[in-house]
Amino acid sequence: MIERIKVTFLGYNKEIYIEKGKSIMSAALSCGIHLNSVCAGEGICGKCKIKLRRGEVDIQNSDAISTQDLKYGFSLACLTYPRTNVVVEIPKSSRIEPVLRQEIYSKAKTIKQVDFKSQKCDFSYLPVVKKIYLELPKPSLIDNINDLDRVLRELSKYVDINNIKISLNNSRNLSNVLRKSDWKITLTIGEYNETYEILNIEQADTSSSNFGFAFDIGTTTISGELIDLKTQKVLGAKLTYNKQASFGADVITRIVHAKNAQGLERLHKAVIEGINEIIENLISEFNIDINDVTCLTCAGNTTMIHLLMRIDPSFIRREPYIPAITFLSAIKAHEIGIQISTHGLLYIIAGISSYLGGDITSGILASGIYKEQNPCLLIDIGTNGEIILGNKEFLIGCAASAGPAFEGSGVTSGMKATRGAIEKVKIDKNLNITLQTIDNVKPIGICGSGYINLIAEMLKAKILDKNGKISIVKNKRVKKTKVGLEFKIEKNIVITEADIDNIKRSKAAIYAAIITLLEHMQLNFDSIDKIFIAGGFGNYIDIEQAITIGLLPDIDRNKFIFIGNSSLNGAKQAILSNTAFKKTREIAKQATYFELSTDSKYMNEYTAALFFPHTDKKRFQTINI
Amino acid sequence: MIERIKVTFLGYNKEIYIEKGKSIMSAALSCGIHLNSVCAGEGICGKCKIKLRRGEVDIQNSDAISTQDLKYGFSLACLTYPRTNVVVEIPKSSRIEPVLRQEIYSKAKTIKQVDFKSQKCDFSYLPVVKKIYLELPKPSLIDNINDLDRVLRELSKYVDINNIKISLNNSRNLSNVLRKSDWKITLTIGEYNETYEILNIEQADTSSSNFGFAFDIGTTTISGELIDLKTQKVLGAKLTYNKQASFGADVITRIVHAKNAQGLERLHKAVIEGINEIIENLISEFNIDINDVTCLTCAGNTTMIHLLMRIDPSFIRREPYIPAITFLSAIKAHEIGIQISTHGLLYIIAGISSYLGGDITSGILASGIYKEQNPCLLIDIGTNGEIILGNKEFLIGCAASAGPAFEGSGVTSGMKATRGAIEKVKIDKNLNITLQTIDNVKPIGICGSGYINLIAEMLKAKILDKNGKISIVKNKRVKKTKVGLEFKIEKNIVITEADIDNIKRSKAAIYAAIITLLEHMQLNFDSIDKIFIAGGFGNYIDIEQAITIGLLPDIDRNKFIFIGNSSLNGAKQAILSNTAFKKTREIAKQATYFELSTDSKYMNEYTAALFFPHTDKKRFQTINI
Repeated sequence: MIERIKVTFLGYNKEIYIEKGKSIMSAALSCGIHLNSVCAGEGICGKCKIKLRRGEVDIQNSDAISTQDLKYGFSLACLTYPRTNVVVEIPKSSRIEPVLRQEIYSKAKTIKQVDFKSQKCDFSYLPVVKKIYLELPKPSLIDNINDLDRVLRELSKYVDINNIKISLNNSRNLSNVLRKSDWKITLTIGEYNETYEILNIEQADTSSSNFGFAFDIGTTTISGELIDLKTQKVLGAKLTYNKQASFGADVITRIVHAKNAQGLERLHKAVIEGINEIIENLISEFNIDINDVTCLTCAGNTTMIHLLMRIDPSFIRREPYIPAITFLSAIKAHEIGIQISTHGLLYIIAGISSYLGGDITSGILASGIYKEQNPCLLIDIGTNGEIILGNKEFLIGCAASAGPAFEGSGVTSGMKATRGAIEKVKIDKNLNITLQTIDNVKPIGICGSGYINLIAEMLKAKILDKNGKISIVKNKRVKKTKVGLEFKIEKNIVITEADIDNIKRSKAAIYAAIITLLEHMQLNFDSIDKIFIAGGFGNYIDIEQAITIGLLPDIDRNKFIFIGNSSLNGAKQAILSNTAFKKTREIAKQATYFELSTDSKYMNEYTAALFFPHTDKKRFQTINI
Repeated sequence: MIERIKVTFLGYNKEIYIEKGKSIMSAALSCGIHLNSVCAGEGICGKCKIKLRRGEVDIQNSDAISTQDLKYGFSLACLTYPRTNVVVEIPKSSRIEPVLRQEIYSKAKTIKQVDFKSQKCDFSYLPVVKKIYLELPKPSLIDNINDLDRVLRELSKYVDINNIKISLNNSRNLSNVLRKSDWKITLTIGEYNETYEILNIEQADTSSSNFGFAFDIGTTTISGELIDLKTQKVLGAKLTYNKQASFGADVITRIVHAKNAQGLERLHKAVIEGINEIIENLISEFNIDINDVTCLTCAGNTTMIHLLMRIDPSFIRREPYIPAITFLSAIKAHEIGIQISTHGLLYIIAGISSYLGGDITSGILASGIYKEQNPCLLIDIGTNGEIILGNKEFLIGCAASAGPAFEGSGVTSGMKATRGAIEKVKIDKNLNITLQTIDNVKPIGICGSGYINLIAEMLKAKILDKNGKISIVKNKRVKKTKVGLEFKIEKNIVITEADIDNIKRSKAAIYAAIITLLEHMQLNFDSIDKIFIAGGFGNYIDIEQAITIGLLPDIDRNKFIFIGNSSLNGAKQAILSNTAFKKTREIAKQATYFELSTDSKYMNEYTAALFFPHTDKKRFQTINI
């Protein structure tokens, strides 16, 4: 008989029996507790610290945890194997946070009641799922067509009924609803490619109760907005961590994890859980009936969409890097466990290739780059950095593995750009540091834009050399550790040389990608009209500082345009306009993917960019550090 | 506590506990035993006789059972209420037969391997569900589109892929099947209106294993044919009683029954059971894998289609006689419990109105009346008699309640036209009777065409007067009963005056409908080119005899064309050709329904036709009886 061991998680009110030989990490996952993890349980990142309260365990050695931590009963969940029944505590720092209440892509404290109509959108309003109120003439011996055809005859005034269908269930309800409602009904009509479906039939006029969600499914973060599809207003927005982070910080680690037994299922459930959290939160906040939530649009990178749909993503990471799908017609959201109305539809924004997903298509739509006269760049900085070059005549793009540093992951004091995150740093001549945090509260970590600021300031203050090494030693802020020097910003907030190296590699990957793509198209920055900057931190980034560290090119600052979370904005346009949704499919078909990994120039450019701001100083002539 | 009583059915190996106060009929239904019943348990038809073997019962009085029968322990199941636990026997005559092995619509003993191609069909071959074998180029860094688009790119050579969808499940399997099969796959493609769906993906070339069923869902009888969709051959055919007969002989009684608790569900299950029996029988006989049965087409009257789909048919029988639907797009057959492949589709042939169903549309297709130059008639004689008048320019139709007599129901010795049924009768001057039965075996009953023959012969032999009364008394074959005279044909086979009256009313209803429809269109028989005769007994009917009794008009015999079960034949054309299937929708939209019940002429015509052959002798000048 296999020995079973009980693991109790303090504070979670959860316990589980596991087989001997399984780790605490695995026990936590099995009962739905998501721990931080960048390395996907390899014992490298040190993010999944737990504290043993009772029982005996075996702990595997790792450099990622200090002997002091071990002395105090801490260990890494992924390397801790219970020998007896145990009780463990999960420190806050190891937890993946629940829904965050702040909305990071807008400075405004609340973006409730934002009017979509006031946003720039070229598409006419016609939501992907419509509610249409009909008053039907009553049947008579003269006008005696069947109930369904009577409904369709009236409906034909609003949509093309030549290709409409009705589910068996709705056809079963039809006759009674018509007669109970005295022939006054509201139809919920969904659209698939060129066909329509009657999703629901309600008595009386309910056409003003039609709501949807636009989602950006990021590798690190899930953002959702609740939209009133009748008034075209954004009622509210929420953001949460993607709980898949427990299985690794980047898409490759997750694709590897998907191959484990239950791996795909777990990753699938993790992302659905995040989506449902946001939906639940917003519909309860705005007192919306779940049955009136008729659709959602999701933009995400290709791997995220595979995991969302529970489609095996394995072949994405094996040459020749083939996704199973980049688009699927709308499906019932319930089919994959998304908690909106049972007849509600899930629309996926079409992706371009394995490494240019629907988030980028959505960004192309939202930025408007696809209708520009002259070539422009779209740079989306997330866990990957995607670059699109093009205009109304062509669109080509590439993806650089930037790593999650700019999203506040994989760096010692990193955090998302939420309340308490350091977003601005000023270092004066005397090395005094002035900080600005989001919501001006006590700092608790550093977000992506904060790191850019910090490193630029450290470079200017000569705390850092151009290689990214801390060049002062005799300072109370500088401390030597086993793995190098670290610089203290605040109590419990530090930046290490490893962090700086991490960010250097991220910025080099993105900068090199921009250059390689331009060269591939035989263009240079002079011929570029606009550079759209998208991404979670897009609104906060300080251009000057970003150029100082060599993330962005040293060109006319007026060419830069911040467009925020363009993936989410595109998804929002798509849900409100079926023409916009169709446009995303066209864009996805039209755009070309350029593979960096097989391009020899890229590696050279990358290596040359592993310097602040760059090995080739001529390229950053206005930067003087 | 409610008292529970055990009812055991001898020979069925079934027992059930029922509440006190429930009838034996209700007990039988609850355990899936279907008893004959024309009156739907009203104690009128006398078809549901059972024999009490053990226990005590209360029996309600009824004229429908003789005192002699009662003496021998027989009673009507619908009027018998157990007082104690009982054991009952169901005589063969009370059972609804299981699948019949004979195929009634063709004289040939077997119609296996009938070649569809050799039948007259104007539509090009393209089954509604296709299997298409594809050999795909393997992906490379150059040709790196996603798996689904790779499949669609190749598929576009065969079908329009602009409006194709794939289920989530198939998209989940896609990548692995492609790689396991070395990029050689067979797709099963279903068609809905103008859109396609990838129903299944198989490894290697399985395109030669594609089978379907064409069904005619009659009120009394269900007929099905197994069709090889690749070779276009009919492999076999079966026929069974519609088990809904337990709930009444005609559509009106069934619509009434559907209003009872569980009524709709029971009627639905009864028809599905019949369909599944035929499918099971044929696929086991021809050793076909159920997963290779990808579709079925069903033609049936509008009520039958409502019950098939479990849609409430109530409003069909209330003025202004509105069906919920006359057409629905294809659905997964499994959704309603039909046992073909789980991805297999059910296609419904579109109906015209409440009383002109898809069986008639199908008949219009099969007869070709819709493309005739000159006006023609199509007469379909089933439980209802439907008449279509038209050509390539117009189609108008009506329905007459003929009753089930011509289908061998509701008449004392009636039976379906199967083995042992009397189909031809000859009565000589000395009143000697010569019989011919189907398969030349011992006679066990009389089928519809047999009744026409018999009555015509009795008229000619002056056994019957023109009113339908038996006019000889002193004959050993004639017996007087409580309800009138009866004439003995064979041991246990009789025809009663009530039977003759029944048939007289049936033929009058049909003849009057023909005349009324012609007059409505200001036409007469001279302008009619052809009269297509359809229906289960269509192939056997003796024209001369049918004219003799006044069922068919007394016109040039060469104008009559027998087309057999045209409902089934249309369904067969539709399954083999999507153009034919689409044509049925067009026909259904184009045809007009003419309501007889509100037409005063019809009642006059009906009354005038309640005579053999007719009150107006001038109309039947060649008939001399």
